[in-house]
Amino acid sequence: MDEFSLIDVFFKTIPHQQDHVIIGIGDDAACLSVPKGMHLLVSSDTLVSDVHFKPSWSAYDIAYRAVMVNVSDIAAMGGQPCWITLALTVPTVDEQWLKLFSQGLKDSLDRYNMALIGGDTTRGPLCITITVHGFVPKGRAIRRDGASSGDIIYVSGELGAAALALDFLDGQPIDETDKALLMKKLLRPEPRIDLVDCLQAFATAAIDISDGLSADLNHLCVASRLGALLSLDQIPVHPLLKKYRNNNALDIALSGGDDYELCFSVSPEHEEPLLKSLAQSGVTCYPIGVFEKGQAMRVKQFNGEIIPLEARGYRHF
Amino acid sequence: MDEFSLIDVFFKTIPHQQDHVIIGIGDDAACLSVPKGMHLLVSSDTLVSDVHFKPSWSAYDIAYRAVMVNVSDIAAMGGQPCWITLALTVPTVDEQWLKLFSQGLKDSLDRYNMALIGGDTTRGPLCITITVHGFVPKGRAIRRDGASSGDIIYVSGELGAAALALDFLDGQPIDETDKALLMKKLLRPEPRIDLVDCLQAFATAAIDISDGLSADLNHLCVASRLGALLSLDQIPVHPLLKKYRNNNALDIALSGGDDYELCFSVSPEHEEPLLKSLAQSGVTCYPIGVFEKGQAMRVKQFNGEIIPLEARGYRHF
Repeated sequence: MDEFSLIDVFFKTIPHQQDHVIIGIGDDAACLSVPKGMHLLVSSDTLVSDVHFKPSWSAYDIAYRAVMVNVSDIAAMGGQPCWITLALTVPTVDEQWLKLFSQGLKDSLDRYNMALIGGDTTRGPLCITITVHGFVPKGRAIRRDGASSGDIIYVSGELGAAALALDFLDGQPIDETDKALLMKKLLRPEPRIDLVDCLQAFATAAIDISDGLSADLNHLCVASRLGALLSLDQIPVHPLLKKYRNNNALDIALSGGDDYELCFSVSPEHEEPLLKSLAQSGVTCYPIGVFEKGQAMRVKQFNGEIIPLEARGYRHF
Repeated sequence: MDEFSLIDVFFKTIPHQQDHVIIGIGDDAACLSVPKGMHLLVSSDTLVSDVHFKPSWSAYDIAYRAVMVNVSDIAAMGGQPCWITLALTVPTVDEQWLKLFSQGLKDSLDRYNMALIGGDTTRGPLCITITVHGFVPKGRAIRRDGASSGDIIYVSGELGAAALALDFLDGQPIDETDKALLMKKLLRPEPRIDLVDCLQAFATAAIDISDGLSADLNHLCVASRLGALLSLDQIPVHPLLKKYRNNNALDIALSGGDDYELCFSVSPEHEEPLLKSLAQSGVTCYPIGVFEKGQAMRVKQFNGEIIPLEARGYRHF
């Protein structure tokens, strides 16, 4: 099976048409129209076997997660995802693997009515690069550098479940229902596209939490030239973290990656309309602190003492 | 050195601003505007170490070539390149290597006033995926499926030099000047952006010759549901191929990859204005045959006999 039959069999069955796709998969490049009044968002993420995923995972999960991880970057900019290109490097043509991969790709793209518009299939060590595109109304993209001192810092959802799931991959004993829930958090992350409208309207800055809350919040601080003060008692720790890692649950919630929740900020005068808008979105978000002048991140402990907060998270090298 | 200092040191020095870049490298996604009246072109190409390049090549050449190979896909659609994202996977942080890579990236992007708008840097087996973006006036993208029976088939430049260069990589004796010329063909391909205006105006179909003329022409035939008849005496064989491989020069010219010339077609009534336009572009193009009804590719030999032409070229698996 050569590259072209492989594309025909496994990738042309994936949704590849859509209103804005003029020429889709199968030409030298895709040709697309960006709707009037919209800016284009573009982000690339690579997932390397044995670094970002285990080769033993189902190819369905690998594909599904690869798409969602990319979509999360579009959500963090306040956009709606529209298309991806897929660069897939595989050591051999394993038709069963490719069939599952293709199904995971299809289901994840269907989820947001996205199209596969092109890519490249090459031979080599297993590796996936997705470039995701999205639309955001002109002037409404949410930057990392837009926060001001006094803005309130929020996170969506509860933190640390994906990091805990990684801990249990080696077969440590765990309740089966809990394990299923954790694995779902790790393998089927839910990008917070539901929050996009609220964020577009009210957020001053946003980032997705891929490396860990403290590491990613630090990116907002550096970009916005601010410090941040968090309250330990406000950090939304995932309940299973409390159940299985009560000793260092907060530590994992602050530094564990792969949750793909959003960390964003809102100015105090917009907090009330934001909360109304969040209530409609159905996503629970938690205020965890404020941006403040300075360059340091600090955290208020349960006893009221304020200590420095280190930026810790996944290190890429 | 972590991913973020690495990006600061090696990639933020690369051109990343441009008229249409609203938010460039360093946020969750880049935010871009597509000019009025333009469609967006998108293509991804992966280059895997030891498959698409030798790890012993200079990192400068690897980067330069990776960009140009991608730009070639934009040229084949009749577009002007504008931005890339870079997904770079490296086994270790080798600062000397990254410095050279970054310089090759800078010089290749400068060439076409392109911007690096984002990407991902990961740890793993050496592999580069570039997603290139371009602009084409609405309705002017040149497809693979636009050819009609009777259209005349052209190629730009002379074929086979890059394939010959690969042959000499193992150290076979060759004149030094010739070797330098061949290596330039292989390592510094020149995407035919100079032809874009002619193609937009007159071409009915186009493809870039990355895998080999017969293989890539076959893609045009399949997409346009046509056959093709070439004349062996019209195939522009690179002079060094005649010098070093006189016995099978035509064979290499028909099946050798990596030239990144363009193969395109024009209807007979537009051939005269095309030729005028080509003369202005400064790129020599050669008529090599015609599209015809049917599904087969055929070739007229020097003795006038017509025989089937097999689609042969680089096999990806």
